[in-house]
Amino acid sequence: MNFETKKTALRMISHGLYLLSVEHEGHYNVSTISWLSQASFDPPLVMMGVKCDTLTHSMVEQSGQFAINMLAVGQTDIAQVFFKHAEHEADKLSGYGFEPGPVTGAPLLLDAPAWFECKVTDAVKRGDHTVVVAEVVEAGVRDTNAKPMALRDTAWHYGG
Amino acid sequence: MNFETKKTALRMISHGLYLLSVEHEGHYNVSTISWLSQASFDPPLVMMGVKCDTLTHSMVEQSGQFAINMLAVGQTDIAQVFFKHAEHEADKLSGYGFEPGPVTGAPLLLDAPAWFECKVTDAVKRGDHTVVVAEVVEAGVRDTNAKPMALRDTAWHYGG
Repeated sequence: MNFETKKTALRMISHGLYLLSVEHEGHYNVSTISWLSQASFDPPLVMMGVKCDTLTHSMVEQSGQFAINMLAVGQTDIAQVFFKHAEHEADKLSGYGFEPGPVTGAPLLLDAPAWFECKVTDAVKRGDHTVVVAEVVEAGVRDTNAKPMALRDTAWHYGG
Repeated sequence: MNFETKKTALRMISHGLYLLSVEHEGHYNVSTISWLSQASFDPPLVMMGVKCDTLTHSMVEQSGQFAINMLAVGQTDIAQVFFKHAEHEADKLSGYGFEPGPVTGAPLLLDAPAWFECKVTDAVKRGDHTVVVAEVVEAGVRDTNAKPMALRDTAWHYGG
């Protein structure tokens, strides 16, 4: 298999950009992720790839729950901030306001147009990211008119 | 959890549109799918949701391999055709030319701008779709300039 050809083909997959957030034992973290898809209607499941050997991976594994915060076109600033670990100060994470999710306690970023909370059901550990399968247990929408940000709306790549 | 809120939030996930193709014991099938994401760089893995109780699900499960054919903006005609089972006639499937994939034998639609072949590594059966995790073993690109079709470029929804 030609490496460049494989990269070009895989980069044609349509990925979005999301903030994966988690709370565990009073600590919060938020990570920008791209590999997420719905995986079932009934029960409502999603699947996501979470990079191994990261703080977020460890916290999701230990707490067994998390939230996904949607991002709208133009919210590249907040996406970029959470390429690094979140810094918690009072009611803000790295300068962005949040509230704890009603079911999971995972931080819901107030700037996100929508969010949903999940409980992990399964994990497949085979590559450099773990495939996490999880059931959606709560959801909220703050801006029904938001246009979701696709990865290819940005200057970033994550795939290939 | 409010059903409509959950639907609105989940429909903000960025999904694409792809042709999942498979060969098993001399039979071919092709299905239009939406729930696909990369899942690891090394090894290169993808994850996809495949509707249970379908011919394609059964063929992927039995053969353990498949191909993904990318679609470009505007290729809604071919996407729509494969909402139904493929009809095989000579070197065509439902009227569209194909060639067998070099590794898996899964049909590669000649109109697709890119494709990759996969071997199934894991399956998570928890919802109305199975989460299939698979390693990318071969890939090809026919049109490097193609703009991939996102689900929200179409009039269709698949999620919520």
